Amino acid sequence: MTHPTANTPAPSPCDLIIKADVVVTQDDARRILTDAGVAIKDGLVLDIGSYASMETGYCPAQRLDLSGKMLMPGLVNGHTHLPMTLLRGVADDLPLMEWLESHIWPVEAHLTDELITIGAQIGCAEFIRTGCTSFLNGYFHEHLTGNAVADCGLRAVLGEGFFSFPSPMFKTAEDCWQTLRGLNRQFETHSRVRTAITPHAAFTVMPEELIASFELAEELDIPWQIHLAESPMETAVCLDKYGKRPIELLHHHGLLTKRTTLHHCVDVTDEEIEILADSGVNVVHNPVSNLKLCSGISPVQKMLDAGVMVGLGTDGASSNNQLNMFRDMGLAALVGKVRHEDASAVNAQSALDMATRNSAHCLGWPELGRIEKGCPADMIALDLAYPNLMPVFNYVSHAVYGATGMEVCMTMVGGEVLYLYGDFKTIDINLLRTNALQASDWVHSVAER
Amino acid sequence: MTHPTANTPAPSPCDLIIKADVVVTQDDARRILTDAGVAIKDGLVLDIGSYASMETGYCPAQRLDLSGKMLMPGLVNGHTHLPMTLLRGVADDLPLMEWLESHIWPVEAHLTDELITIGAQIGCAEFIRTGCTSFLNGYFHEHLTGNAVADCGLRAVLGEGFFSFPSPMFKTAEDCWQTLRGLNRQFETHSRVRTAITPHAAFTVMPEELIASFELAEELDIPWQIHLAESPMETAVCLDKYGKRPIELLHHHGLLTKRTTLHHCVDVTDEEIEILADSGVNVVHNPVSNLKLCSGISPVQKMLDAGVMVGLGTDGASSNNQLNMFRDMGLAALVGKVRHEDASAVNAQSALDMATRNSAHCLGWPELGRIEKGCPADMIALDLAYPNLMPVFNYVSHAVYGATGMEVCMTMVGGEVLYLYGDFKTIDINLLRTNALQASDWVHSVAER
Ligand SMILES: [Zn+2]
Ligand SMILES: [Zn+2]
Repeated sequence: MTHPTANTPAPSPCDLIIKADVVVTQDDARRILTDAGVAIKDGLVLDIGSYASMETGYCPAQRLDLSGKMLMPGLVNGHTHLPMTLLRGVADDLPLMEWLESHIWPVEAHLTDELITIGAQIGCAEFIRTGCTSFLNGYFHEHLTGNAVADCGLRAVLGEGFFSFPSPMFKTAEDCWQTLRGLNRQFETHSRVRTAITPHAAFTVMPEELIASFELAEELDIPWQIHLAESPMETAVCLDKYGKRPIELLHHHGLLTKRTTLHHCVDVTDEEIEILADSGVNVVHNPVSNLKLCSGISPVQKMLDAGVMVGLGTDGASSNNQLNMFRDMGLAALVGKVRHEDASAVNAQSALDMATRNSAHCLGWPELGRIEKGCPADMIALDLAYPNLMPVFNYVSHAVYGATGMEVCMTMVGGEVLYLYGDFKTIDINLLRTNALQASDWVHSVAER
Repeated sequence: MTHPTANTPAPSPCDLIIKADVVVTQDDARRILTDAGVAIKDGLVLDIGSYASMETGYCPAQRLDLSGKMLMPGLVNGHTHLPMTLLRGVADDLPLMEWLESHIWPVEAHLTDELITIGAQIGCAEFIRTGCTSFLNGYFHEHLTGNAVADCGLRAVLGEGFFSFPSPMFKTAEDCWQTLRGLNRQFETHSRVRTAITPHAAFTVMPEELIASFELAEELDIPWQIHLAESPMETAVCLDKYGKRPIELLHHHGLLTKRTTLHHCVDVTDEEIEILADSGVNVVHNPVSNLKLCSGISPVQKMLDAGVMVGLGTDGASSNNQLNMFRDMGLAALVGKVRHEDASAVNAQSALDMATRNSAHCLGWPELGRIEKGCPADMIALDLAYPNLMPVFNYVSHAVYGATGMEVCMTMVGGEVLYLYGDFKTIDINLLRTNALQASDWVHSVAER
């Protein structure tokens, strides 16, 4: 006697099945699935395939119907300074040093814990709203940003920034290392928050301090990130101080490794691109900030061709002025073409790779930036009913060139929905607006002194 | 006996009073009003001032409370090809001629009246959604675009594009002139739709045809617009054909006048900038299209400094791929800085001027692009509750650098509300989505042949 059902295994339980018209997976084969389903369990992607096969294979506790939507990995922001949302629009149309010395640093001197927290929360809300699910941060009082990130459900790697000692934040190197160790311990067991070692730049932190901080990164086994080769001005200062260009200097001290993430790399030579490629270092391209501060346009396509891992970042809201990875992804593709005098440079797929898979490497979290079995369920959905996404011919083109970021109608991190159809699930947006109005008053009072 | 109320004139009737937290007027003094009100009558701005003074002075039939919002002039798009939304994302990452000859023109050969209408409607919806209230268009079968514009409540100046004769559209010049006269007659009495004469370019239309078409523009007293000096390739063709660079050629034939609007002007010399300034011609800057097709970056600040009237345009969705003036306004400010190696070049106020007042001149409709007594009530509101607009320090900076365009929560043309808090008042957006899906199928079938 045969049992006709014996060959069909019982559906296995999962937390959620998502149904979507399209899934841009960003997996190794860059598969794009239609009429697709994603099964999620314990914050990870359990399986992905046709919606029918997900329903056959899994028995979900919940379902999320994203018909008419396009699912894709959450964007990964390789470089930002989250609380600087407070300084959005405070000083525009100025070169880097005048901007820093006359406008940014004087205002920052008056920051309080409360303001930093509000600034971080505004940034988190903007990330959630525009589909950025994880980011690499650098700023002061990072434990406050860490608390904001932990509370709102985003994922981040946080680095307490430091300058040469003594500095306003740290009298001695030992003070600094203790704070960095403390931050690392605070989030040691957190599933979504990690830490990184974050010297400000090669011209503001002495070589021996860079080396000591790198040793700490090795000991803690965490990423080491630094602003580097941002502008010809920086190169001139490094040459003057150390007789070496910024990349040369770090290379000389053995600081270019797979653990290293370099922010900017605008002023780089062809020889330096070879050094970057050989060392396995990660580079974050910040096109909007580099344009706004008139630093130049990074030779991204040359770096990609050489095999450098190049991610994408927004930098802080004071030099962008948005924290919108969609805007900057499109802009990376656009300015890459004039930089290389080649309309095929930084094509749509490359730009999307930079903003997802590549940036994940810059965070030292390479399983992010893709929708793939076993990877964290960090995903976003674009509503294809927006007129700027009509009609649809090429989904990757729409994500890079067609979307503003505001078409995001669902944002999920580790299987948890943070935003759905206008509702922030983890942020009290009205309270945040009230707090932001107070922050506006504070900025006016400080910036107009 | 005295009458204490005799000195207070009775409030005069108006159609609408709008209350807004902020009004960025873009008037001659660039006034920014807070706690402001705008009174509207017969499609025009009747008065503007404090909200309290509007309520004292006028008795409105209706009120619109835009508390928490920022009111500004609707953006004016100086250059587009509306129905090309159909070709959005069909061919990216390609240089101008390969893009036109291998991808755009072959697909365009299969366009039908129905498809052009759908394409125009998609474009109208995108403009309304992202705060563009008027535009200068050039394409084929402009009567169809005219009908779409008339129906949806937007404002436009429409030009039937033409190439040297005989062309697929027109066997003879006389055929063409008749069509242009017919289009002009069709909208002669329309309050929101006007027409322009629109030869394609100096390298695709012969000088004697350019001259004849300009005479027609003079006779009908309407603008004359042309793509000009878009790329070094075009310059080379003109030099080869006529022994003159494009601007020289038009100047030689007396075609650079106040009636003239030139699209692009990327490949221009300093001497040519002087010619442009002296002639009083209007220029439309299309930064996204110029980047995407790798044409270069126009020397906008140099032109502005010389006194050239420079507006802003999106160009068509096939080379952008959005029709979002907010995106392109921010981008104009960003790329202007690297173009001129000056972080203060194309500052936020200049970019906003280009996208409003200056573009209005390019349309030959200079009373647009400002909120001012007696001018058409073409206005939009940004919802300041979006996280990317928190906190607020500088409203102009927020419009140019902070906004994506999707913060637009109200779009009004000639006093009529076309969009409010997610509702399209004049477009059936669900029907449009259904039609767009059919258009997607059509594009796939034609483009993948
Ligand atoms: Zn930075
Ligand atoms: Zn054009």
